[in-house]
Amino acid sequence: MAKGPSSVELIVIGNEILNGAVLDTNSQWLADRLYNLGLYVRRITKVRDDLKEISSAIKEAVKRRTEWIITSGGLGPTFDDKTLQGVAIATKRSLTLNKEAVEMLRERYEKLKEMGVVETAELTPPRLKMAKLPRGAKPLRNRAGSAPGVLLKYGKSWIVCLPGVPVELKDIFINEVEPLILQKSVTVKRRRVWITVRGVPESTLSPHIDEILARHRNVYIKSHPQGIEDGVSKVVLEILGEDPSEQRVNEFVESAAADMMEKLKNLGAKEIVRSEEKPI
Amino acid sequence: MAKGPSSVELIVIGNEILNGAVLDTNSQWLADRLYNLGLYVRRITKVRDDLKEISSAIKEAVKRRTEWIITSGGLGPTFDDKTLQGVAIATKRSLTLNKEAVEMLRERYEKLKEMGVVETAELTPPRLKMAKLPRGAKPLRNRAGSAPGVLLKYGKSWIVCLPGVPVELKDIFINEVEPLILQKSVTVKRRRVWITVRGVPESTLSPHIDEILARHRNVYIKSHPQGIEDGVSKVVLEILGEDPSEQRVNEFVESAAADMMEKLKNLGAKEIVRSEEKPI
Repeated sequence: MAKGPSSVELIVIGNEILNGAVLDTNSQWLADRLYNLGLYVRRITKVRDDLKEISSAIKEAVKRRTEWIITSGGLGPTFDDKTLQGVAIATKRSLTLNKEAVEMLRERYEKLKEMGVVETAELTPPRLKMAKLPRGAKPLRNRAGSAPGVLLKYGKSWIVCLPGVPVELKDIFINEVEPLILQKSVTVKRRRVWITVRGVPESTLSPHIDEILARHRNVYIKSHPQGIEDGVSKVVLEILGEDPSEQRVNEFVESAAADMMEKLKNLGAKEIVRSEEKPI
Repeated sequence: MAKGPSSVELIVIGNEILNGAVLDTNSQWLADRLYNLGLYVRRITKVRDDLKEISSAIKEAVKRRTEWIITSGGLGPTFDDKTLQGVAIATKRSLTLNKEAVEMLRERYEKLKEMGVVETAELTPPRLKMAKLPRGAKPLRNRAGSAPGVLLKYGKSWIVCLPGVPVELKDIFINEVEPLILQKSVTVKRRRVWITVRGVPESTLSPHIDEILARHRNVYIKSHPQGIEDGVSKVVLEILGEDPSEQRVNEFVESAAADMMEKLKNLGAKEIVRSEEKPI
């Protein structure tokens, strides 16, 4: 394979995640999206609303020379929304009122006042807090909520901060971040195929997976054991390929999948189902 | 507050998580369970099936003097199940066949053979791989699957490795790990209460939350904005307290919740609902 795709790390911020009060679905949504865009998500880190935790998580990702560092959460108006302070510490920038962000908030609160959601459109200190960005950062328009996203170049890394509310995170990522990522990154073409097999346990499959991998060096096969249903073991095999060429990646994955299906028949599988959509 | 509760880090291992193919629910389940047991979950890290990534994530957690390091995933029979190799590297131990673990696997495969799930109970190399533990480790019985969990003391840290299949992870955690944690940890009593408020946006609430926190220094209040429903903003407030005494933590949280409810009425909230179960 040629030079690999650009690397990404996700940093999810919020006590509610570490206390188990809220299931974080943002990182899976982002990881799936980034996988399909052709990038390489290397690590996901979840930390508390604590300046030292946030800034050290960012510094560690910078130190690993991660090309895209994407945070989720902690951009709101309350005292425990500390992401931008954490980024400011990690990047040794001061927080300053960003004119473009102030303009975005002004428009937002005027609209909310018109809608009758808020009584005043005044930019109170908690509202203005959302426009205090690390020096040199650019705000990213939030069409689904108040807090703008933030984009900041630091050394070799792009740091992107997104709100934790899923609808806002998705809005900013799709409209503002994806175009930038595609423009500035090395990406690969990817293909995934799943094979669900009943009646061959994972420990029996294991040496045959090794054998197929030895013959198909351009794919990766991951087995997901699903336990025993009605006295029959169930395993989902995920066959993944990546390559700069879409044609080649399709050939690699098709050929390995056909080889695997044949092998499973010979092993006496009770049922073999191939799917293009993830079955788990 | 007295000395804080014992610290925990979770390390989730698996390419399928970083590729967004699978939603990890194990870490939320563990975090919620550990929160209610009275421990302090400091960080969750998710890494790929890669020896360097796994071992460095463990080394970083050890360096932070984390008391419990709990991993999920990568204990199975296939080539990409690398967790124990990663632990062995991080702790500078060799992997050796553990007699007690071999005995657990022997019982397991004999039972599976009786059930007709496998053709032979023979402990083939892929099966025996699951009994190769870092020297000095203790296997933890898995009543819901094959791969035993693993417990290893290293410096000040206890390292616990659990399978990624949720039913197996839960079985080992509840039956084997919880009793150990309660025996060996400093824990606190915790209480959480939620207040759902409609008609007061987060940016309006923010200074009032600060004011209540200034009066109730033994609680923490987290606001979770839920967007706008039917032209009315919705925010969920989570009031949390912890203390060595159950009576005191209840007093702290009750008093702050009552104060907050009063405040929300005065702010002209359209609806205020208090709940003991998380509403989000």
